[in-house]
Amino acid sequence: MGVLYGPKSYENEPHRDPSLIVNSKEPFNAETPPKALVRSFVTPEDLFYKRNHGPIPVIDDPNNYRLEICGLVPGPLSLSLQDLRNLPKHTVTATLQCAGNRRTAMSKVRKVKGVGWAISALGNAVWGGARLHDVLELAGVRQESSKRHVEFSSVDVCKEENGGPYKGSIPLSQAMSPEAEVILAYEMNGKELNRDHGFPLRVVVPGVIGARSVKWLTEIKVIEEECQGFFMQKDFKMFPPTVDWDNINWNSRRPLMDFPVQCPICSPAEGDLVKAGSKMKIQGYAVSGGGRGIERVDVSVDGGKTWQEAQRFQDDKEYIADNPEKCKRFAWVLWELTVELTNSPLEVVAKAVDAAANIQPEDVSSIWNLRGVLNTSWHRVRLNVVPPQSKL
Amino acid sequence: MGVLYGPKSYENEPHRDPSLIVNSKEPFNAETPPKALVRSFVTPEDLFYKRNHGPIPVIDDPNNYRLEICGLVPGPLSLSLQDLRNLPKHTVTATLQCAGNRRTAMSKVRKVKGVGWAISALGNAVWGGARLHDVLELAGVRQESSKRHVEFSSVDVCKEENGGPYKGSIPLSQAMSPEAEVILAYEMNGKELNRDHGFPLRVVVPGVIGARSVKWLTEIKVIEEECQGFFMQKDFKMFPPTVDWDNINWNSRRPLMDFPVQCPICSPAEGDLVKAGSKMKIQGYAVSGGGRGIERVDVSVDGGKTWQEAQRFQDDKEYIADNPEKCKRFAWVLWELTVELTNSPLEVVAKAVDAAANIQPEDVSSIWNLRGVLNTSWHRVRLNVVPPQSKL
Repeated sequence: MGVLYGPKSYENEPHRDPSLIVNSKEPFNAETPPKALVRSFVTPEDLFYKRNHGPIPVIDDPNNYRLEICGLVPGPLSLSLQDLRNLPKHTVTATLQCAGNRRTAMSKVRKVKGVGWAISALGNAVWGGARLHDVLELAGVRQESSKRHVEFSSVDVCKEENGGPYKGSIPLSQAMSPEAEVILAYEMNGKELNRDHGFPLRVVVPGVIGARSVKWLTEIKVIEEECQGFFMQKDFKMFPPTVDWDNINWNSRRPLMDFPVQCPICSPAEGDLVKAGSKMKIQGYAVSGGGRGIERVDVSVDGGKTWQEAQRFQDDKEYIADNPEKCKRFAWVLWELTVELTNSPLEVVAKAVDAAANIQPEDVSSIWNLRGVLNTSWHRVRLNVVPPQSKL
Repeated sequence: MGVLYGPKSYENEPHRDPSLIVNSKEPFNAETPPKALVRSFVTPEDLFYKRNHGPIPVIDDPNNYRLEICGLVPGPLSLSLQDLRNLPKHTVTATLQCAGNRRTAMSKVRKVKGVGWAISALGNAVWGGARLHDVLELAGVRQESSKRHVEFSSVDVCKEENGGPYKGSIPLSQAMSPEAEVILAYEMNGKELNRDHGFPLRVVVPGVIGARSVKWLTEIKVIEEECQGFFMQKDFKMFPPTVDWDNINWNSRRPLMDFPVQCPICSPAEGDLVKAGSKMKIQGYAVSGGGRGIERVDVSVDGGKTWQEAQRFQDDKEYIADNPEKCKRFAWVLWELTVELTNSPLEVVAKAVDAAANIQPEDVSSIWNLRGVLNTSWHRVRLNVVPPQSKL
């Protein structure tokens, strides 16, 4: 025991890329510069957003690491990293997104509680590891209809009021479904998972808010009902705009799982200078939860009066609008649209439609909530148009 | 062969409830009076909406009925109704909704093509039958990751331009998933399925537009990719508002499957007279596709300026807000809110949020599409307030 542990101080943090936008230093919470985000379909590990509740856990000797599979399982297990590597390896390209992505914009309506995030509290990676499904089968668990959950426990030391190590759970049915592609990842983008992202092992739950993809995993427990931990019961729930801290009833809402459709503009950025008469490429990402792919991205340059459809792609600029079969359903799409600029004021707006025809709310105030989660409102970027002869 | 067949004339139609609102006589398309819809969690068969493309099929002797299981299956089968009844019986409470529900309101923005429907082209029933999963397993099919689909063929005679008998398909992964609860139903609300709803056998695909729950089923075929039939390829797709009949490219969109979140007001109705100073009960339904339950229903009586949360229930008025575990995820919730009326003008508005925090569009024009499908915009009902002493 104790080979993987959560330290109490920040003396042993990993090296981080200096270009990250740091929202909080201790614990370390940082996001990608938006223009870097749309440079590649797969987000480089160093630029991938970092979301922590305490100091990064430390492991003295990975050979001593053990993952415990316990609870309502016929045959409890204690697995080494090598045991996990000996299982069939599965890779899934999945976008992880923090439920608090775009929280800063929600705070402009009315102050919300939580780490401030602009538009890059997410990233898309190729995760490699063992299928959770295979591991549970090893422990004798079978696919069944029940209300049971699978609980993931980490070793990181969170603030005391948050009740100890980080935990989360997902329904057993999702854990056992091959289609859900839940994996125990020891690789990120073909390399060994790094400390910031959960070394030596993390869960990746595709299509679900990042909070359930528990890092620095030490225990997987099958339980009768959903996890009663802080982050399932007293956080990451969405309340209506009428609920505030004086009238909140946490039990009245369910823990957030799938996230709704999201579609920010990454380039240009608010306030950028652009030349009248020039061509401008508008770029962003779009993603929806639950494996619901993106059906369409609409972009407006006149504040929402008229719209054009953007081109969507994954991998190698292979346009998935023409290749729906090639769509990776748990991964974002990047999109772009090139427009010719006139002299008119420019307000770029983007919105997406997912495979179940879900749309985004036009206005953030209609979805304001005290924890500032799931801001999926239309994203708007105002630009300054300068005369063609200006020097930029 | 030929025991179940689609006649060419309308001489042998079943008896129908006279209270149904008939939108087209031949083929027979009719919906429930909205106030009747919210009277019970389970919609009575007679009042359940009827959606047809031709005369109702006829079967001479149900004992001669055969369902063929063919295509990419290791062991093709020909099953009688008794064979199906001998398999374990599964029941699922599921709301079926026509993709064209609320089309009439979309036509007010700009004319769309299709049968006009107000707000009741849906119903909630308890379907009983064999699991599709069990039947495919009997034919040797195993759960696998592939692009294969399962195609359902009917015998009803559609218009010639629609390319013959009605067909539709769903992904094999969904067909094989126990969680998806796709069934071959021979019962509706505990009684033998009636002719209007697919006697002797229909598919029920919970959480998906009604068009894929093929009635009068005669063949189930595992195929390499999605069905190429008219109703999959040239209908039931959603286009952006900019696409019209002169610039349509059917191949650019995928067939509709899951439907988005929907929440109409069934009582009171547009134009109803109500007394100032009295109490009024507002009632409606809310449902979302893909098994995403309803997380919240918001109701406004001032046209959307302020909102209150309505109470949601399924079965026996057991309020599921307090019993999330009891939620039937493929079934609608009914909801109600009682308000005290003042003298002010009354505009009732309702909107819902589903379990993945998906919301509805405020305005129908933003989702206008030439086929008039998936109108899930906020529903509005304007009432006339009369003085307290008026006789109503």
